[in-house]
Amino acid sequence: MHFSIDRKFLYEKLSLVSRAISSFSPIPALSGICIQVDANQIILTGSNSNISIRTTILSGELNQLQIHETGSIVIEAKYLLEIVRKLDCTMIEMECIDHSLVRLSSVNGQFQLNGIQAQEYPSIDFSAPSYSFTMKAKDLKECVAQTSFACSDKDQRPVLTGVNFHARQGILYCSATDSYRLARKVLSFDDLHDFNITIPSKSLIEVTRSLEEDDMDIQIFVDHKKAQFLLDKTIIQTRLIDGTFPDVERIIPKESVAVMEVSATELDSVIDRTNFIRNEKIHQIKLECTPEICRIKTSSVEIGNSDEILTDCTYTGQDLTLSCNGSYMLDAIRALHGEKVKLEFSGYMKPIRISNPEDSSVLMIVVPIRSYD
Amino acid sequence: MHFSIDRKFLYEKLSLVSRAISSFSPIPALSGICIQVDANQIILTGSNSNISIRTTILSGELNQLQIHETGSIVIEAKYLLEIVRKLDCTMIEMECIDHSLVRLSSVNGQFQLNGIQAQEYPSIDFSAPSYSFTMKAKDLKECVAQTSFACSDKDQRPVLTGVNFHARQGILYCSATDSYRLARKVLSFDDLHDFNITIPSKSLIEVTRSLEEDDMDIQIFVDHKKAQFLLDKTIIQTRLIDGTFPDVERIIPKESVAVMEVSATELDSVIDRTNFIRNEKIHQIKLECTPEICRIKTSSVEIGNSDEILTDCTYTGQDLTLSCNGSYMLDAIRALHGEKVKLEFSGYMKPIRISNPEDSSVLMIVVPIRSYD
Repeated sequence: MHFSIDRKFLYEKLSLVSRAISSFSPIPALSGICIQVDANQIILTGSNSNISIRTTILSGELNQLQIHETGSIVIEAKYLLEIVRKLDCTMIEMECIDHSLVRLSSVNGQFQLNGIQAQEYPSIDFSAPSYSFTMKAKDLKECVAQTSFACSDKDQRPVLTGVNFHARQGILYCSATDSYRLARKVLSFDDLHDFNITIPSKSLIEVTRSLEEDDMDIQIFVDHKKAQFLLDKTIIQTRLIDGTFPDVERIIPKESVAVMEVSATELDSVIDRTNFIRNEKIHQIKLECTPEICRIKTSSVEIGNSDEILTDCTYTGQDLTLSCNGSYMLDAIRALHGEKVKLEFSGYMKPIRISNPEDSSVLMIVVPIRSYD
Repeated sequence: MHFSIDRKFLYEKLSLVSRAISSFSPIPALSGICIQVDANQIILTGSNSNISIRTTILSGELNQLQIHETGSIVIEAKYLLEIVRKLDCTMIEMECIDHSLVRLSSVNGQFQLNGIQAQEYPSIDFSAPSYSFTMKAKDLKECVAQTSFACSDKDQRPVLTGVNFHARQGILYCSATDSYRLARKVLSFDDLHDFNITIPSKSLIEVTRSLEEDDMDIQIFVDHKKAQFLLDKTIIQTRLIDGTFPDVERIIPKESVAVMEVSATELDSVIDRTNFIRNEKIHQIKLECTPEICRIKTSSVEIGNSDEILTDCTYTGQDLTLSCNGSYMLDAIRALHGEKVKLEFSGYMKPIRISNPEDSSVLMIVVPIRSYD
């Protein structure tokens, strides 16, 4: 293996695949980047066995790639990135000097790094799953941002740590829930095949971090085993989470007894400034609503209490007092990305439906909690 | 206690005194800010018993302070800061509603916080020590930045965790050492009384963080018990470290067998990019110097090795190969703030003297380490 290439270009591509790499991999080779040099391209692969990223560098691009000898090797990602980032040169040369030792040279210096032979790298199947659909990068980003926050961060029910993508009759329902709240985004597509899969939220967040241009088309391939995101010359693929995702349709309230419409900024800041008033680490807020006045209160024996009136707010329907987790409410308001927030109440201790009056594609549900004061 | 004041002004002053507060104080009252309201001023105090900060807010300043009732209370710093930072109003009103409960009000809301009675706050003596001298804020900042990094971070020899200030015959010698390296700054003053004290480096760093304007005059008061920094209406005072600071004069080499002058940027980046090649966590670099060529090498059985030639470099004197801690060398180069770095070698395994040819007030020493390859 022997090639030279523009240093910054190489650094970008190494950074991209290294996103999949975890420094605490039980398989030593997976802490490295696998570099495979063919006659006219270089393939870089990074993986943590849940998520894998592969990118291809073709000669002839604006990268000045010159391949002198084919071959392959695996090099510890963090060391390789450090050198390529810090070297003080435009072009970098990389050469295997025996099966597992690699030399990186610049004008005035050289590094030799111990690598691992490419045979020891796990073989990863990057073949494309059968169904595919296409989304704009910005739509995918928004969809992930508006749902993934509601996933569970506990491993007791693994299926809740992912976002469920359920396609039926041309409509894609993206849902996430930790069983106390729900975030759902609904999108329609032409020619969408039916499927029902749950993608780990960590993988989705890594995918969206790799999306640079908002206008880029992302081709998404899925089957019952994996999901693959195709971005230009890069494939990001992730395993799925097994298990049946709960039927979230059932918990979406169909009717309401009262409706509040309020400025998102005001509701956000009123809740946010009470964030430190917690009971057993839970940020519990109490909404006291009548058509005349809506207040948000908090109280903690240890810390103190607060009482604030919402000013930019209309409320219609029956008087209602209920408590909920303020952090969940904040997450929902922020993910709605709207100027106004609409809260639909279905009764005492019944789920609250939270939405953006300007965007019907997205819906949040927060379940109230019992308050004892 | 009852007053109203401009919210942003109050926030700034609360932030300032809160720098001294540690969240894990064994004395509960010390996790709070002590607020003492007199007839025409408010005094805020924060302390962690090592370092204490007191600032005075006078009515009549651009703070719209209106005092309705005198009194005092201690309030948990993190909660108070959070409220005052996030409240959505220009003016804030603060009132004791019983001995230990405080009400903070804005236009549409109010918070009530549990406080602690001011009698429970430790009494801190802010009287000024006997000797004083004056420095520009920017000189004090530079002096601390150029020495404190060389302090020890281990508690085995407490005196090495501070910067020693030794004034004799109008000259102030500021020295810090962890016994493997030394940083020393020398300043002269008119009318400087002799003293020899060691100030905890953490306190010095806190002091410099509180210095906003570079041109400000800082009056420094010292005696054998404490040091006090007077900045406008704020006093920052710190305890001293007991014990005799080592006589560092002895380890400064008086003669050299070889001298290198090299671009600071080049030496920094050559050393910096080998930072990950470590042996038992130590970043060991080897200098191989002759008048013809100077190289910096590193080597680790596990990771790999490097070899780089210094280009913007002159070297005179005898050929020399020696190893030292690269991280110590980097700290020294960066603290010298020069374009060029001068390294004076006094022989194999002898201390290296590192200086900025343009600034004779500052001097660094790094002791070589034995290398076994």
